[in-house]
Amino acid sequence: MLKGKMVIGQSGGPTAVINQSLVGAVLAARQQDAITGILGARHGLAGIMAEDFIDLTTQSLEQLEDVANTPAAALGSVRLKPGKAECEKVFEVFKKNDVRFFFYIGGNDSAETAYIISEMAKEANYDFCTIHIPKTIDNDLKVTDHCPGFASAARFVALAFMGDDRDNNALSGVKINVVMGRDAGFLTAASALARQHEGDGPHLIYVPEKVFNIEQFKADVVAQVEKHGRCVVAVSEGIVDADGNPIATSGEKDSHGNLQLSGTGALGDALSALVKEALPKGARVRADTFGYLQRSFPTVVSTVDAKEAREVGGFGVEHAITLGTNGSVAIRRLSSVPYESDYFVTPLSTVAREATSLKDEYINDAGNDVTQAWLDYLAPLVGDLPKMGKL
Amino acid sequence: MLKGKMVIGQSGGPTAVINQSLVGAVLAARQQDAITGILGARHGLAGIMAEDFIDLTTQSLEQLEDVANTPAAALGSVRLKPGKAECEKVFEVFKKNDVRFFFYIGGNDSAETAYIISEMAKEANYDFCTIHIPKTIDNDLKVTDHCPGFASAARFVALAFMGDDRDNNALSGVKINVVMGRDAGFLTAASALARQHEGDGPHLIYVPEKVFNIEQFKADVVAQVEKHGRCVVAVSEGIVDADGNPIATSGEKDSHGNLQLSGTGALGDALSALVKEALPKGARVRADTFGYLQRSFPTVVSTVDAKEAREVGGFGVEHAITLGTNGSVAIRRLSSVPYESDYFVTPLSTVAREATSLKDEYINDAGNDVTQAWLDYLAPLVGDLPKMGKL
Repeated sequence: MLKGKMVIGQSGGPTAVINQSLVGAVLAARQQDAITGILGARHGLAGIMAEDFIDLTTQSLEQLEDVANTPAAALGSVRLKPGKAECEKVFEVFKKNDVRFFFYIGGNDSAETAYIISEMAKEANYDFCTIHIPKTIDNDLKVTDHCPGFASAARFVALAFMGDDRDNNALSGVKINVVMGRDAGFLTAASALARQHEGDGPHLIYVPEKVFNIEQFKADVVAQVEKHGRCVVAVSEGIVDADGNPIATSGEKDSHGNLQLSGTGALGDALSALVKEALPKGARVRADTFGYLQRSFPTVVSTVDAKEAREVGGFGVEHAITLGTNGSVAIRRLSSVPYESDYFVTPLSTVAREATSLKDEYINDAGNDVTQAWLDYLAPLVGDLPKMGKL
Repeated sequence: MLKGKMVIGQSGGPTAVINQSLVGAVLAARQQDAITGILGARHGLAGIMAEDFIDLTTQSLEQLEDVANTPAAALGSVRLKPGKAECEKVFEVFKKNDVRFFFYIGGNDSAETAYIISEMAKEANYDFCTIHIPKTIDNDLKVTDHCPGFASAARFVALAFMGDDRDNNALSGVKINVVMGRDAGFLTAASALARQHEGDGPHLIYVPEKVFNIEQFKADVVAQVEKHGRCVVAVSEGIVDADGNPIATSGEKDSHGNLQLSGTGALGDALSALVKEALPKGARVRADTFGYLQRSFPTVVSTVDAKEAREVGGFGVEHAITLGTNGSVAIRRLSSVPYESDYFVTPLSTVAREATSLKDEYINDAGNDVTQAWLDYLAPLVGDLPKMGKL
């Protein structure tokens, strides 16, 4: 039976519940005799390479519960797609410290990293178990029904649109809200949960899975303004034209070499300008870019999400001890009404690298709204929402 | 004793609790025999001029409670600084419909409107009582200790910075958050409540009450990055240079002829660009503009704010019935620890027109932070905040 230290790290963009997964794994690990040390890597792979670890055996339960309820990665996170040299360095550090278990909380890039290191261990005949613990507000991991972190961000988006739709109703005009999601429209599509009454916004929803046609967009907005006297638009930061190019960006690139989409108002402002062209002069047009608040807002947490994020951490550790096979923890939906789920482990290769996106059946034919099937999938994850009163 | 119909309206930017004031006034009015009809004006003065009213005597308590708990103006709002002709039209409608009570929920412009109409009634010897019910997330009304609507928006800002500071701590870099507040820095200053531990952000806070010096700003950010390895900045959308000009805007004007500050990412993006100039190439710099979510986010409501907003509505009606004098309802703080307050009515002329701003004693000497006195003033209004856990 495998016995030795474990390393746990957090990677990529934080979520409101990524620390639930950390605490779930740590609490489970503390019960295991086979785990002789619990090392938290500061800033993911960067911390492992630098042997910058926190001992996670000493904190009180109260402190861990506070951490679990705090958004964003308590160990620190990192945006690093490691090359072979970095993975070799990580593996060296593991061998040197008798690390036999590696838990990496992150998205598909993290699963890929876990996979590469697991292959190195296999080649080197080093007894070792790597578990990827899923996390992403983008909800774009394969195999799993949904990703821990997504439902809380979706709850933020739904609540934001509920309030903003009432705001727009009070003062009228066109309001464009830019939602996170580079390649997948899950989070933008969550805005549809804001609708409780006939005529409620968002009135239009645009996701990166469909080509964004500027002329069609302008015509769509004009039609909604004619119908409702106002229009609330949900648009993903990742919308692209027919050639796959972003509609507007600041031109900056992030550390992955991707164009920076979040943390700038460029797209919202560009879309506002387009709408102003299409409407009579003086029309009230505003754009907000929800930005980083979506993934790290205290108190806006889905109950299901917090519970599942906690449990995937613990499940990963128990799997590593009892079966010892590498893999990525996934969620299986057993029932939507009432909502029930359980967990299983899928091979790392099935989650690594490629991501997924909104299924066709979740997007309407016109490409400017979602379907009832999408709402049926989403609603139980986000949980009850407050009732919006009207006169 | 004055007897007749009442009109109630909502004006200006919505808040999370402006409907509490509406419901508080309506419920109090339903108890009064002197009030023979309760007319809700759709979209404030615009609705009065068009005689577009909702009968507010028929809704169930349950419906009114739902409305009270819903952000943004349920009657609809309006941005209108009326001239003499509009006020005369409003007064005519009042006379025609035997309206003897007018309750206007809004900021200092609404108090001014109420004042003008009350003067017209006096001149015309028309028995009439006008009450201004205070509302503004900007907290910039004179006389009152604070304004209903402010504390809930402040709570949103504090929570947003708490989460965003953890997010920035996890991934590092410079994060600039643009907060609402054209002329007053109250809401931006509320970001300071996010700090729970040494080193927590926001590390810098800029308000419109102090001249914003670009070179000083760059030097401030560089100094904080050297100290903490990162920097979270709170900046008011209304910051101005030594000549009183905005630092950056979209160039658009709103219906008051003011430059549009909200609903655009222009300032955040401009400040990002300045910070990038000051830091080594490739530094991670992001900006979010919190936008309209600050004033209308369901579930993010201060308990004190919701209670007071409800009570200023009821108090205004009771004052109108028992004393019948025109005025603006104000809040008097009796104690900060434990928090206690009561209400009084101040003449409309003391609240109309001019607004107030952050006192000097609330801003530090360097003009880039707030003082303990500010936190002592603010904390009881916003209420308990969740504990941010750390490893």
